[in-house]
Amino acid sequence: MDVLAEANRRRAAGRSVVSLAVGQPSHPAPAVALEAARQALETGRLGYTDALGTQSLRQAIAQHYAEYYGTTIAPERIAVMTGSSAAFNVAFLTLFDAGDRVAITRPGYPAYRNILAALGLQPVEIAVGEETGHTLTPDALKAAEAEFGPIKGVLLASPANPTGTVTGRAALSALADHCARTGTAFISDEIYHGLTFSGEETTAIAFSDEAIVINSFSKYYCMTGWRIGWMVLPQHLVRAVERVTQSLYISAPELSQIAATAAFRGKAELDGVREHYRTNRQILADRLPGLGFQIASPMDGAFYAYADVSRMTNDTMDFAWKMLREIDVAITPGIDFDPVNGHRTVRLSYAGATEDIVEALDRIAAWV
Amino acid sequence: MDVLAEANRRRAAGRSVVSLAVGQPSHPAPAVALEAARQALETGRLGYTDALGTQSLRQAIAQHYAEYYGTTIAPERIAVMTGSSAAFNVAFLTLFDAGDRVAITRPGYPAYRNILAALGLQPVEIAVGEETGHTLTPDALKAAEAEFGPIKGVLLASPANPTGTVTGRAALSALADHCARTGTAFISDEIYHGLTFSGEETTAIAFSDEAIVINSFSKYYCMTGWRIGWMVLPQHLVRAVERVTQSLYISAPELSQIAATAAFRGKAELDGVREHYRTNRQILADRLPGLGFQIASPMDGAFYAYADVSRMTNDTMDFAWKMLREIDVAITPGIDFDPVNGHRTVRLSYAGATEDIVEALDRIAAWV
Repeated sequence: MDVLAEANRRRAAGRSVVSLAVGQPSHPAPAVALEAARQALETGRLGYTDALGTQSLRQAIAQHYAEYYGTTIAPERIAVMTGSSAAFNVAFLTLFDAGDRVAITRPGYPAYRNILAALGLQPVEIAVGEETGHTLTPDALKAAEAEFGPIKGVLLASPANPTGTVTGRAALSALADHCARTGTAFISDEIYHGLTFSGEETTAIAFSDEAIVINSFSKYYCMTGWRIGWMVLPQHLVRAVERVTQSLYISAPELSQIAATAAFRGKAELDGVREHYRTNRQILADRLPGLGFQIASPMDGAFYAYADVSRMTNDTMDFAWKMLREIDVAITPGIDFDPVNGHRTVRLSYAGATEDIVEALDRIAAWV
Repeated sequence: MDVLAEANRRRAAGRSVVSLAVGQPSHPAPAVALEAARQALETGRLGYTDALGTQSLRQAIAQHYAEYYGTTIAPERIAVMTGSSAAFNVAFLTLFDAGDRVAITRPGYPAYRNILAALGLQPVEIAVGEETGHTLTPDALKAAEAEFGPIKGVLLASPANPTGTVTGRAALSALADHCARTGTAFISDEIYHGLTFSGEETTAIAFSDEAIVINSFSKYYCMTGWRIGWMVLPQHLVRAVERVTQSLYISAPELSQIAATAAFRGKAELDGVREHYRTNRQILADRLPGLGFQIASPMDGAFYAYADVSRMTNDTMDFAWKMLREIDVAITPGIDFDPVNGHRTVRLSYAGATEDIVEALDRIAAWV
């Protein structure tokens, strides 16, 4: 957050800053979504919607599950959310009570830990690495329970931020089964679905009607600033989620719901954006190792390279600040993703323009 | 919520439903706001903003305080929020710990109680009525503390939902002073500012730099569906609010921020909307008593009449359902606002079209 703010300040001061720090697409929302929003503005009136979203959007999301995954989901099980941020907050409030333990990966998306802590829940960070395929396993969960006590929920992202790891069909199914068998809530963060470059992208819904799936229009659909996402819920949780959402959010922004409903018709455009990420990804994969950035995980999906730079520094926070101040290149220090080993790692986003990636790498090459 | 859903179902089934149940303007966002949104859609790219909002919007809000209230507020003390809903959630998470007691009025906006409860806080409902000027007083707070134990925060709306009460300068100042003296957090919900028809509309910021003011573009500015609001914070809370907001919301929708920045230039149009509410308010004030609806509080502001109908029923939930089913008029039973005495009261919103108000009253007159 502070690195980003400093990068913005330097840019505002007229410096040529290249940022590989921010986890959002540089491409705008698909043209069909923008056009739908434009048309809705003509009618002028935008109001609260049903707490769980408009019927049109819930139906469009259900249809996406049928077309993309071949899975039938009743629209009633879809809850439209004000971004995946709202989905995490609502899911946690609905599923857990203060003090409950929830397992997450380390490294992982820092907001998980922060939201859990803000709600008085206990994040149990489970280290993942080469030996566990960079993902959570039932054995690792059992070991964590033996060490910390009962775990009420498991939250896993695939593709994952920051590591890019895609958890394959067998591993995801084993985890979902374990959770179903032990009565543990299983929250599957699928926000980077649609952005998988290697490995098997599967939805937890395929294995378990009890899984809670969280997704969003922010990544593949390029709609971060619209703050719009969704959950797929087990039927028995729908009413509770509706109540919590009504009280805490009232509803997601109506214009964003209208644009998102149209966005599913923009997949040709969005697939083009993904191919652009694929190009960026290859450039990073080819050049980073030679610059002393050892790719620490497989870059299967999402739009991040997570690299170990311990050959150059043992304090990546300081490393990132120096890089920003000396060559105006912004990257994200690992400490936010991994409080234990993040001082040796950095995250580079490849969601930006290809020329920015190349420019950043050129500057880094001259600098290191 | 259920009455609204049933009203929507009946309307969808082709019935001529008149709703006085929903607390949102029927007027769209001001034309200047819609035009700003249209222009922003042309540029296409919308992204995350700073967690506390764009500089433009924070400055525009600060300027509003200078122009409207004659109060100087540094833009750094303004936090843009995803509606007042987000503001309540963030304020509660920032200020309180699980188990803390927070005083609210009874009757009051039901989301207060629900959000507090969802976060593991203890709402202390203090009955307000004629004898306390329908608002909270230091004496009532002291009495509640004697009964329930220490109170960490006080949340008061003026104008209030559902009662319409405007807490005047002397009463608001006495409450702010009491809170400052006792180290109690004071949250002033000013979401209905701009919609005051009698009494003194004052901001808590005028009395206390320690007050937390919550406001929104949903009511006077007619922008419910845009989900955009703000807080004015004591300087020492800004960083904590920024962190909680970053983790739980990332930022408010950028398009809504752009439209809201422009909305301040739409006050001539919005003042016209207020005059329309004034007409509706007078019609309700004139006709309701003759129909057995005794106005239970002063209708100073907001856009609600809160009426005692105990001469007709002792179960307003049933009364509201019957009214909806028999004459297709939707009003809100009081039980959500007042769990103790709400079975005798109902809320009627006058934010809708004048012809709807008249039509509803005509149907009610024939029905009662």
